Amino acid sequence: MLNYNKYRRFETINFKERTWPNNSIEKAPIWCSVDLRDGNQALINPMNIDEKIEFFNLLVKLGFKEIEVGFPSASQIEYDFLRRLIDENYIPDDVVVQVLTQARPHLIEKTFEALKGVKQAIVHIYNSTSVLQRDVVFNMSKDEIKEIAIEGTELVKKYASDFEGKIFLEYSPESFTGTEVEYALEVCDAVADVWGASQDNKIIINLPSTVQMDTPNIFADQIEYMCRNFKNRDRVIVSVHPHNDRGTGVADAELALLAGADRVEGTLFGNGERTGNVDILTVAYNMFSHGVNPMLNLENINEIIEIYERCVKIPVHVRHPYAGNLVFTAFSGSHQDAINKGMKKYEERGSKLWEVPYLPVDPSDLGREYEPLVRINSQSGKGGVAFVMDHCFGYKLPKAMQQEFAEVVQKISEVKGEVQPNEILEAFKKEYLDLDEPFKLINMSISDVDHGSNETTKVKAKIKYNNVEIDIEGVGNGPIDSLGKALYNSKLINISIMDYKEHALSKGSEAEAAAYVYMKRNDIDKKTFGVGVDSNITRASIKSIISAINRLYKL
Amino acid sequence: MLNYNKYRRFETINFKERTWPNNSIEKAPIWCSVDLRDGNQALINPMNIDEKIEFFNLLVKLGFKEIEVGFPSASQIEYDFLRRLIDENYIPDDVVVQVLTQARPHLIEKTFEALKGVKQAIVHIYNSTSVLQRDVVFNMSKDEIKEIAIEGTELVKKYASDFEGKIFLEYSPESFTGTEVEYALEVCDAVADVWGASQDNKIIINLPSTVQMDTPNIFADQIEYMCRNFKNRDRVIVSVHPHNDRGTGVADAELALLAGADRVEGTLFGNGERTGNVDILTVAYNMFSHGVNPMLNLENINEIIEIYERCVKIPVHVRHPYAGNLVFTAFSGSHQDAINKGMKKYEERGSKLWEVPYLPVDPSDLGREYEPLVRINSQSGKGGVAFVMDHCFGYKLPKAMQQEFAEVVQKISEVKGEVQPNEILEAFKKEYLDLDEPFKLINMSISDVDHGSNETTKVKAKIKYNNVEIDIEGVGNGPIDSLGKALYNSKLINISIMDYKEHALSKGSEAEAAAYVYMKRNDIDKKTFGVGVDSNITRASIKSIISAINRLYKL
Repeated sequence: MLNYNKYRRFETINFKERTWPNNSIEKAPIWCSVDLRDGNQALINPMNIDEKIEFFNLLVKLGFKEIEVGFPSASQIEYDFLRRLIDENYIPDDVVVQVLTQARPHLIEKTFEALKGVKQAIVHIYNSTSVLQRDVVFNMSKDEIKEIAIEGTELVKKYASDFEGKIFLEYSPESFTGTEVEYALEVCDAVADVWGASQDNKIIINLPSTVQMDTPNIFADQIEYMCRNFKNRDRVIVSVHPHNDRGTGVADAELALLAGADRVEGTLFGNGERTGNVDILTVAYNMFSHGVNPMLNLENINEIIEIYERCVKIPVHVRHPYAGNLVFTAFSGSHQDAINKGMKKYEERGSKLWEVPYLPVDPSDLGREYEPLVRINSQSGKGGVAFVMDHCFGYKLPKAMQQEFAEVVQKISEVKGEVQPNEILEAFKKEYLDLDEPFKLINMSISDVDHGSNETTKVKAKIKYNNVEIDIEGVGNGPIDSLGKALYNSKLINISIMDYKEHALSKGSEAEAAAYVYMKRNDIDKKTFGVGVDSNITRASIKSIISAINRLYKL
Repeated sequence: MLNYNKYRRFETINFKERTWPNNSIEKAPIWCSVDLRDGNQALINPMNIDEKIEFFNLLVKLGFKEIEVGFPSASQIEYDFLRRLIDENYIPDDVVVQVLTQARPHLIEKTFEALKGVKQAIVHIYNSTSVLQRDVVFNMSKDEIKEIAIEGTELVKKYASDFEGKIFLEYSPESFTGTEVEYALEVCDAVADVWGASQDNKIIINLPSTVQMDTPNIFADQIEYMCRNFKNRDRVIVSVHPHNDRGTGVADAELALLAGADRVEGTLFGNGERTGNVDILTVAYNMFSHGVNPMLNLENINEIIEIYERCVKIPVHVRHPYAGNLVFTAFSGSHQDAINKGMKKYEERGSKLWEVPYLPVDPSDLGREYEPLVRINSQSGKGGVAFVMDHCFGYKLPKAMQQEFAEVVQKISEVKGEVQPNEILEAFKKEYLDLDEPFKLINMSISDVDHGSNETTKVKAKIKYNNVEIDIEGVGNGPIDSLGKALYNSKLINISIMDYKEHALSKGSEAEAAAYVYMKRNDIDKKTFGVGVDSNITRASIKSIISAINRLYKL
């Protein structure tokens, strides 16, 4: 049995004065990508410099204005990468690169050396402030730990004053979620004082859930407490940096935004140490789905996935929100049916507002396709099959026919699992279009007859029935009726035509038409559909009759 | 640019009276696995019956007491599977199987036919109640939709009264998150009335976030509203069924528990339609990490992963909380250092309470190994390398040596990415243990000399130096000192021994010892470590000297 007594919740805050649950997310935060640092650091094979450049360019294209590019004082590769970014002018004027460093003299010196020539940069210093790390890692008092932060700030300030570019300071009380909020506040206020932060010279105070330690509402309480108690809220850009140990990184970020955070550090698809960082894309698409501009250019998710998977070498999970291969799918019959109806209504109404069941966003807005949306397995029903036949191939099956054909497809899926659209089309052809036994139409002539009654079309046809050629003839009010009469006259069959529908399969004069006939065999009360396809609408309807007869009289 | 104006947040509730943010999770909910229905439904290749039986047995072993096994009236495979469970006695007496069905007469009839012979079962009926589905899918009024729920309940009640086993009713207002809470309440209360629910005959009211539509605090508000406004709270088991469209399924479940939910439906690793269902394992391990008994037997996560991946055919992501391959790892140098120190303190203190930085839980509690915990790439530092050498191989490198060897490993990692523990050991052997140039020890005799002074050990040795054999001799206070003196006397080298450490590599009389010597070459002020390993502790120390000399005088 799990030894749960070995664990205890760290009680950090009791903040009944919270107001964040009354808020909603009305605008995008400042996004900061830490893919090239926190993300890259946690890879079995970290990116090489060319991959980093490609990834950096992607981040710029996506609209990130703040990008953490590494820890140049601790790694030669990250140093060299930063130099290439600067020397080869990869950094647009409206993008600020951010570098991480510990607050030690030689590391800060090397950091500024690496930054030489950059127009602006965020220098990000951190030290761990949690109860646990103060105890087991540093064996230092609260005042000693605060002193590390203050000395680091002084050092950065000293180097920044001699640096020709603009330097912003970011300070992280690392392991914030395991730190007493009052103490975290004290350290952050001290750092802001030493930096000389003001409304015109803001400091970024980054509050990481270095390790997630509680439900996301507690993180929000911590953030609101900080926001409301800073000595001077206006001089602080409140940043969060959620990890995902408890699977709630996205929730941490969202509730922190409700609680007053201005800025979110995270990565694409949540790459990062251990369980990863918050997935910025999910947070951004969530905003988008509420009609809030996420301030990122996320209209081609496939391109993002392609570059990400190539550089990071970790696949995006098939159920990853917005991005996974299976997330814009519906295998369930009732879901498929609802999507089918919802899409139809959405198109019919020409609505400007997306409202389709089971699809929080329109996949095409993310550059994804409709086709794989409805997937057919043994759990699927007529709605799904009808959707595939319509959206992939243009066949708008009559409602009563959907069940008939779905049963055909279900038999296949029970044997082989998922059935692909082209396999569904194959089954459709085999079941309806390619039938020529026992009846095969050899040739036919149709003539309009005008003798003052309703019966105006005459059909003469040669058919083969069980390898015997037979001439038949009939008159009716249109080709279908006439052929029906001719067949009836032949005494070979005894049928009634119950319903008929025809539609163009595509646009233009070369377009093919699909004709559906619903037919009853009178002697044994059996009913079925027949389908015919032809560029000539008369021939399409004739073919549909032959199709139905062959289904009713198959040997 | 993303057309965010196409979307609008569905405002469902404004519930300032909420109290859930003041609560914490004190006990496990009733867990209900929907792996075999919602999970299985969404697979490209749904499980076959044998896989379902294996999966069912796993769920029973994990301690699930409520297991949804399918939609037997809609699928022959699910019907046959349920029959096998019943006919072959797979269902323990304390486990209740649950079956889903739409509330239509012929489906309910078939459902009860499928259940024949079961001791107890939950019949789960649902209909969609959301504003959107009432409009685009059903085109029905609120009263008409409520009537579907009532008629379904009446039907189940009728069949249940004739059934020999015990039947519980679960009702889901499907697409609850898109339903006005007041209306959802009205429908649920009506269903509970018709069922005749009471404190002794509770009804399960399951409130699904069929599609996640908002931040998780809103779901919690919805749940608390329902809990506080049911006509009779005591007759209702409040269940939630979170999906994960916004990446916040775990948060939905956790905040819903704060808000009063009694029961959680979900799946292992979050399998399910689209982005999947809430991952019950993560919610349960989160509880566990707070010292709350999750009431599930989750002490062997590797077995769960193995069966899951084989049956479901979707891999668990490398960053999946608790389960992913990379989640109990630290590549960052400072994290590795902190884990190293934290683990040491944890062991030294013999603490009953797990407190190690960056590790929310002890991996061994989940049946996972320590070995892959610290992973070495170019971002790693001395702490990580020292951890691997200690935890994988038992070498407790002296602190000053950790940096020296870490630089060796970093050079390798900069070329090839991640370095495996055995590769680190290889590098260690090559760098320290396998050196025999320019000096090689041919043989040696050691004798204790007692002449009343401190110098009590005499060493005579034959060494090969640049292929020339040389006899050397020295006396000192122990073998290391004596060999040092002998080498010094030989005039071949000019060294000082600065520090020395030795420890057993393993337990028992056959154990090997590792000796570390820190040596200075006086002529050029160069320092290094040498290491020797031998089952004889004297030979180990001698070897460490030869190792250090060879490093100082290498050609």
